Amino acid sequence: MNDPLPQGATIGILGGGQLGRMLSVAASRLGFTTHIFEPGANPPAGQVAHKITAASYEDTKALQTFAQSVDVITYEFENIPTSALDVLEKICTIHPGRKALAVSQDRLIEKEFLTGLGLKVAPYADITNAKDARGAIASIGTPSILKTRRMGYDGKGQIRLIEASDMTSAWHVMDGAASILEGFIDFTHEVSVIAARASDGQVACYDPGENVHKDGILRSTQVPANLSTSQRMDAVLIAAKILNALDYVGVMGVELFVTADGFIVNEIAPRVHNSGHWTQNGCDICQFEQHIRAVACWPLGDGARHSDIRMENLIGADMDRIAELRKSDAALHLYGKSEVKPGRKMGHVNFRSLRSSPS
Amino acid sequence: MNDPLPQGATIGILGGGQLGRMLSVAASRLGFTTHIFEPGANPPAGQVAHKITAASYEDTKALQTFAQSVDVITYEFENIPTSALDVLEKICTIHPGRKALAVSQDRLIEKEFLTGLGLKVAPYADITNAKDARGAIASIGTPSILKTRRMGYDGKGQIRLIEASDMTSAWHVMDGAASILEGFIDFTHEVSVIAARASDGQVACYDPGENVHKDGILRSTQVPANLSTSQRMDAVLIAAKILNALDYVGVMGVELFVTADGFIVNEIAPRVHNSGHWTQNGCDICQFEQHIRAVACWPLGDGARHSDIRMENLIGADMDRIAELRKSDAALHLYGKSEVKPGRKMGHVNFRSLRSSPS
Repeated sequence: MNDPLPQGATIGILGGGQLGRMLSVAASRLGFTTHIFEPGANPPAGQVAHKITAASYEDTKALQTFAQSVDVITYEFENIPTSALDVLEKICTIHPGRKALAVSQDRLIEKEFLTGLGLKVAPYADITNAKDARGAIASIGTPSILKTRRMGYDGKGQIRLIEASDMTSAWHVMDGAASILEGFIDFTHEVSVIAARASDGQVACYDPGENVHKDGILRSTQVPANLSTSQRMDAVLIAAKILNALDYVGVMGVELFVTADGFIVNEIAPRVHNSGHWTQNGCDICQFEQHIRAVACWPLGDGARHSDIRMENLIGADMDRIAELRKSDAALHLYGKSEVKPGRKMGHVNFRSLRSSPS
Repeated sequence: MNDPLPQGATIGILGGGQLGRMLSVAASRLGFTTHIFEPGANPPAGQVAHKITAASYEDTKALQTFAQSVDVITYEFENIPTSALDVLEKICTIHPGRKALAVSQDRLIEKEFLTGLGLKVAPYADITNAKDARGAIASIGTPSILKTRRMGYDGKGQIRLIEASDMTSAWHVMDGAASILEGFIDFTHEVSVIAARASDGQVACYDPGENVHKDGILRSTQVPANLSTSQRMDAVLIAAKILNALDYVGVMGVELFVTADGFIVNEIAPRVHNSGHWTQNGCDICQFEQHIRAVACWPLGDGARHSDIRMENLIGADMDRIAELRKSDAALHLYGKSEVKPGRKMGHVNFRSLRSSPS
């Protein structure tokens, strides 16, 4: 384990959205300053960070200056261009490391990595041309989902296929982008494990949360999840296996489908995760602080859960609920985004109740 | 009740120390931006605020520009010069209001205000000259404490008198500053109530905490405090009486001595209070968010306590404990101050445990 970062050290964060914002606040709580790198104007994280660089990921000079000004670099999203990572890594350590990024930036590599660990994933087929597309639909069948291998998030870059004949138009929409066809899974519900690994290999997982999605976007997470004690243990062991295999440093979100035959790994995200926002009001050390502790080479904090939590995302017009939520006993977390847009994550709310025994 | 401040509104905060820093973070959680006014260089709050004005309280132009840029003004300390308040108040609402400041800026006015409400305070005598000083020592006796009426905090501006003859040199040290002599109270322990009042008059109090001071500086706060159920109720009623009498908007710290004859009010602070830092890990809505809610004309949040907490301040060389505290299950809160000095508040730590029944 490297020396822990001292008071006043600077954490560089790639990405200035709500995750970067909450990471920045957590870093300040531990006495660090933060420096955000973000191409977009007026990013939410800019309101709470010590410094912000507004530049593109193609701006080598800006990337170099940024990397020279910070003590360690982390990120709020996995789709950072490889060329930018090459520039940054020459100057400053990046946590989590390149291996985790390589795996999670490409759905095909991710599936192969997970399968290689002996973990179950949904049936999938690799597609690079129209002939592959026809072969894939023959082997995977329908219903199924065509997904771009790269740059997908929140249901973007995905098309559902109901009948085999849907493939022709779907592949046309993909416009030649390397993709995979993923078979539907007969699952009862989805859970996620927010797991953390320190630079000395220590692993700590939060209690799994149960997720509900709509239109590909997370709507709510409930802890405790509906899982038996042995399922809970299995979920945590799967997450630990993934983190250890990647020699991971930081927090990761691991999404699991619950089926009659055990867990199927849906996807992994090498960063703090929307389904871990409940930790802000359910634990002493939230996922954001846990991530900062890991990347700062601190020991991990206590991830024990003191309360039951239901987290609900506030998306687009959900902001109409604000007047009512202000009056409720819920804990509001708003991202300071000035403009409400359909599908835009504006905030979230945590409803806390007395801790029940898990499951 | 005025309209609640909307998303993106700006809260102006006078003072950029750790209290301003934690207020700023709480404001961002509710979707507000913050603007800090602070004469000192590199204030802790500046690292997490959206904007900072570095200017003196005598700089009328800077005060005006600041007031014009924000939607409401609050503060982290009560000793704001009256002349600055006059300038600001012409342009923008200040919460808590002038009445609370007038009372808490002057120990004599504070005592008279509290006595006028029928509350008990320590015996005191007003001193403006050497003759008063002799009269005071005759009526109050020793042991007693000579305190400046204005600008005292953390034990500063206070001299303990053990014998009557100590008065001569003590009064000499005061150098003519208007003072009071305060008699010692035979109290078993000190508690404080962190109370909040919304702009519509709604009052909410956190569970009283039990405080331990050393050298005039708070060292630790424990909740629940050692109080009976009826004492707990009395403490809350005293705090509510004070807030209502001041038509108060915001969070206030009310320090109470526990004696065999009931509570004696030690002092009040019209702001978030060190003895309320435990709320960050003991409640959904901490004192900082509660204060921001009040000054933003929002309804107050849920002040219920879900856990027992022991808060310890990290003062000066206490920072040597950091390596050990990083490894513990405690929740650390550090203020980002680069230089450790004796007596300087560097951070605090909250130790959480399962909620016991109160007292």
